[in-house]
Amino acid sequence: MTITQPAGVIPPLCTPLTPDGEVDVPSLLRLVDHLAAAGVHGLFVLGSTSEAAYLTDAQRRLVVESVVRHAGGQLPVLAGAIDMTTPRVRDHVAAVTAAGADAVVVTAPFYARTHPAEIARHYRAVAAASPVPVVAYDIPVAVHTKLPGDVVLELAADGVLAGLKDSSGDLAAFRQVVTGVRDHQGITGFSVLTGSELIADAALAIGADGVVPGLGNVDPHGYVRLDRLCRAGDAEGARAEQERLCALFGLVSVGDPARMGPGSSAIGAFKAALHLRGVIDCPLTAEPQVPLSPDEVERVGKYLAAAGLL
Amino acid sequence: MTITQPAGVIPPLCTPLTPDGEVDVPSLLRLVDHLAAAGVHGLFVLGSTSEAAYLTDAQRRLVVESVVRHAGGQLPVLAGAIDMTTPRVRDHVAAVTAAGADAVVVTAPFYARTHPAEIARHYRAVAAASPVPVVAYDIPVAVHTKLPGDVVLELAADGVLAGLKDSSGDLAAFRQVVTGVRDHQGITGFSVLTGSELIADAALAIGADGVVPGLGNVDPHGYVRLDRLCRAGDAEGARAEQERLCALFGLVSVGDPARMGPGSSAIGAFKAALHLRGVIDCPLTAEPQVPLSPDEVERVGKYLAAAGLL
Amino acid sequence: MTITQPAGVIPPLCTPLTPDGEVDVPSLLRLVDHLAAAGVHGLFVLGSTSEAAYLTDAQRRLVVESVVRHAGGQLPVLAGAIDMTTPRVRDHVAAVTAAGADAVVVTAPFYARTHPAEIARHYRAVAAASPVPVVAYDIPVAVHTKLPGDVVLELAADGVLAGLKDSSGDLAAFRQVVTGVRDHQGITGFSVLTGSELIADAALAIGADGVVPGLGNVDPHGYVRLDRLCRAGDAEGARAEQERLCALFGLVSVGDPARMGPGSSAIGAFKAALHLRGVIDCPLTAEPQVPLSPDEVERVGKYLAAAGLL
Amino acid sequence: MTITQPAGVIPPLCTPLTPDGEVDVPSLLRLVDHLAAAGVHGLFVLGSTSEAAYLTDAQRRLVVESVVRHAGGQLPVLAGAIDMTTPRVRDHVAAVTAAGADAVVVTAPFYARTHPAEIARHYRAVAAASPVPVVAYDIPVAVHTKLPGDVVLELAADGVLAGLKDSSGDLAAFRQVVTGVRDHQGITGFSVLTGSELIADAALAIGADGVVPGLGNVDPHGYVRLDRLCRAGDAEGARAEQERLCALFGLVSVGDPARMGPGSSAIGAFKAALHLRGVIDCPLTAEPQVPLSPDEVERVGKYLAAAGLL
Repeated sequence: MTITQPAGVIPPLCTPLTPDGEVDVPSLLRLVDHLAAAGVHGLFVLGSTSEAAYLTDAQRRLVVESVVRHAGGQLPVLAGAIDMTTPRVRDHVAAVTAAGADAVVVTAPFYARTHPAEIARHYRAVAAASPVPVVAYDIPVAVHTKLPGDVVLELAADGVLAGLKDSSGDLAAFRQVVTGVRDHQGITGFSVLTGSELIADAALAIGADGVVPGLGNVDPHGYVRLDRLCRAGDAEGARAEQERLCALFGLVSVGDPARMGPGSSAIGAFKAALHLRGVIDCPLTAEPQVPLSPDEVERVGKYLAAAGLL
Repeated sequence: MTITQPAGVIPPLCTPLTPDGEVDVPSLLRLVDHLAAAGVHGLFVLGSTSEAAYLTDAQRRLVVESVVRHAGGQLPVLAGAIDMTTPRVRDHVAAVTAAGADAVVVTAPFYARTHPAEIARHYRAVAAASPVPVVAYDIPVAVHTKLPGDVVLELAADGVLAGLKDSSGDLAAFRQVVTGVRDHQGITGFSVLTGSELIADAALAIGADGVVPGLGNVDPHGYVRLDRLCRAGDAEGARAEQERLCALFGLVSVGDPARMGPGSSAIGAFKAALHLRGVIDCPLTAEPQVPLSPDEVERVGKYLAAAGLL
Repeated sequence: MTITQPAGVIPPLCTPLTPDGEVDVPSLLRLVDHLAAAGVHGLFVLGSTSEAAYLTDAQRRLVVESVVRHAGGQLPVLAGAIDMTTPRVRDHVAAVTAAGADAVVVTAPFYARTHPAEIARHYRAVAAASPVPVVAYDIPVAVHTKLPGDVVLELAADGVLAGLKDSSGDLAAFRQVVTGVRDHQGITGFSVLTGSELIADAALAIGADGVVPGLGNVDPHGYVRLDRLCRAGDAEGARAEQERLCALFGLVSVGDPARMGPGSSAIGAFKAALHLRGVIDCPLTAEPQVPLSPDEVERVGKYLAAAGLL
Repeated sequence: MTITQPAGVIPPLCTPLTPDGEVDVPSLLRLVDHLAAAGVHGLFVLGSTSEAAYLTDAQRRLVVESVVRHAGGQLPVLAGAIDMTTPRVRDHVAAVTAAGADAVVVTAPFYARTHPAEIARHYRAVAAASPVPVVAYDIPVAVHTKLPGDVVLELAADGVLAGLKDSSGDLAAFRQVVTGVRDHQGITGFSVLTGSELIADAALAIGADGVVPGLGNVDPHGYVRLDRLCRAGDAEGARAEQERLCALFGLVSVGDPARMGPGSSAIGAFKAALHLRGVIDCPLTAEPQVPLSPDEVERVGKYLAAAGLL
């Protein structure tokens, strides 16, 4: 399957693990089915919500192969190629495309301290070596630099990038890319996606092509409805659906901040919710994340109940 | 060779590359000889100065194997196992120890946002799986968290960590670890190393066991002299030698900050200096770093000349 | 004039200066007239765009007195009381309310490193001493902490705060306050205002009460139209007007980042635009800001011309 | 009294408050006597440790007047002129010099986002208006920019700055200023002071002229001994004294981080210690700082007892 322009709802799939920390393929495929049944428009594996940072190379490969084998052809599969710099990212691009990914999603370099000119060089070198389209992944909370809008537009105009997945939370900067892409003669087929669960309606209203919501693992039907309402121009309906999802999103904060980081809490809650909803067998998160306590899991259940998801 | 307590001068080796970006093993071995001839006390490969963040897994393995085969038994070889989280770091630990490393050097998790409790879990899990001692690598500029001193001391007391390589630049915090280690009955054989090129004399004076200076690639004799003067209690001599090295260190800033990041400038300058001194064949740095211009390389040469190194 | 709930378009007024750095009162009053004629709903003096950080206490007092004497009774006047901590802010509150301000706008403490509990204490103590309503000013780029949404809601419920002026750029967090305020039984008359020039339409669509756009100095008619279109439910019209304003906003970046900070560029451009439009006599910014060059001012003129404002 | 070059031990005086938050002048003067009796070489009022950020203009003036009247002529009095930008700092300079300060201590601009060129303009404009020498105050934790070493040296060479008070914790950068000042023909009488309580010995060993230790309020005799040992070249004695002071410094962390910021804990502990030692009447800190609990105060007492100060 060739994807020229990812759009619509493309959840970043959680990666279910077995109790001993290996990829739980049957659970993963049930998650794919759960999402496909809700009507999502694509699948994003090996992103931050997928715990890509925690998966070994063997596990990453298994995830892509399993999902592509199961859903390839029906749904486009985007795969993260998350690593520190160009040479290492190139290796991941080779691995995930060999495993069948339709597009790769690539962050700016991290660990290394890079200049915007080096970020541009990075994407040019990665794209030159990639057999599939490259989507830029803007996630300052992880890589500690913000992808400059003018760099994204320059790379889009040069055909280096096929899209942007924006997890910066900065809607004003996102808008500059959205309108820049639209108004630039030389850019076609570029996809602008937001990773913001809480303002997906606003992002679509200003012209985003699609949404990549981590919470979409838990309630894919909600995001599919939201996307449909936005495209139908039903601003009030969209806002109501979005606010329902915002309330549900509260589950990411169940973890005690005195005991764990915000990532452990959010991913732990997504997995607990998928487990409570019967989609995956085990809510384990990867090392060294601290697991939710039984009380915290119970609070996840209350969020699900309040949203009518149990 | 077993190392219980790394000490003295342990340079973090640059990784020479061929013009097409592969590890230049003959140059790497000449660099090892250059350092050994100067009297260094150990070798640290796959650290930040080694461009570990830029090397593929195959390149990393080749570096460790080559250096261990060449110098193992004569000098202890510490190897970085630099990756985002526990499962990925464990794979690197397995690889570098299979290749013969005498100890592994491990940062806090990065990309992921972790809590101090998760940093501790990370080191415990890595150490449990490591056949060799684990040295913690505190490098906030890369991983964006400072390793808390109390976590280091707790892990030292529990036998999880065998040492600390501090590249934080925070000498006051470093001192707390140095004195904490010294005064704690239950901690023995723990090695406290500084990565600060410019205050190595001060770090040794407050009780550091050794120094891991990137600039030690360029002038290993200088750091060996500095270490000897400090151990001999010659504060004035040490200060003079240190100030000479501080002047030389100015070479890390030759790169134009409008054109490249500080890492590209520093590593580019180290490699240019090694090339000008005839140690390595090619000064190339890895992608996506911007190379120094001929003018900038010329300025590196002036620093070398001023230091009597050409 | 009593204001219970500021709403609509409330520009943060630039503070025109004479060539020798004193407040240019006639120009300031012409700016007030320029805004009033466009139909704005309130005036915010002594905010960041007003260069409050650069004005002496005497200048601050003169600004408030002048604007209140000129426009008080016709338009509500909100005044910043910007200083580091509670005792100093209390003094500013006393000064600006003596000068006639209808409400005060107060940031979290800065310079000092504060805990969220101390931020709450700060607002409670300031409000207890203020004869007028207190609006919280969330501006992390200046004070280096983000005002936590739950603290804002707690203070709103307790009647401590009368509103929030959000300049964080984080629309998701802003939405949590908007919906939190709306859904909380115990909160009435609380005003939620955005300082984001580029996503004012989105902020109004999710329920903001008003906008406080620095660019509103330059094109108040545009923001008044935008506000009207949003309230009329004309999403497409609002989006078009907003995008026109986004294009105009490009003028804030005319200043060379190699020569000046982003604040000097933005405030310099606002003042240059007001000067070119004939509203103020002199575009000078306060010390130590670097002034725009003639070329940079010319580029401001081009933005105005493109927007039909010259 | 004219001071050309502050040197030695110059504690940043705590500002004792009465139970209702006013400056407690008798306690302040007892603190001055306590320090003078220990043999300190100067007094620094209205610094961060003095809670300058929390004092009103009237309180600031009272502090300077009281201390100058009491100790002026015997000890040089340096006074902070802490505010956001040039015009406001100029007013503070006028006030503290009218009150008799021998030198003023000035940070880079804060709240505003400034460029290094603007920091330099700031100091030039402040110095041009100051009747007394200007000392730069490098305190990134408060102002969120690091004072660039080359800017300091340029301003020193031009006679704009008379000294540097470094509270950055970055000893390598500090050393660059120390040696830059020493080696520059055109710089004379420039004073380089460290604010680092824990590495004062190291700072003096690399060439600092003096120390400005907050902990010097609590144990001025310790820092005077340390300074004397360093100047006598007794590195081992200095190290032992410094380590004793490091152990005592642990008192700054008695405050529960779940309940208060680090500043509240540190200043609260200094004041509690001064109260327990009988120097000041009341340990109150200014609003909105959270006070230490009785248990936390008891722990301060244990630190004092362990150091032989009770």
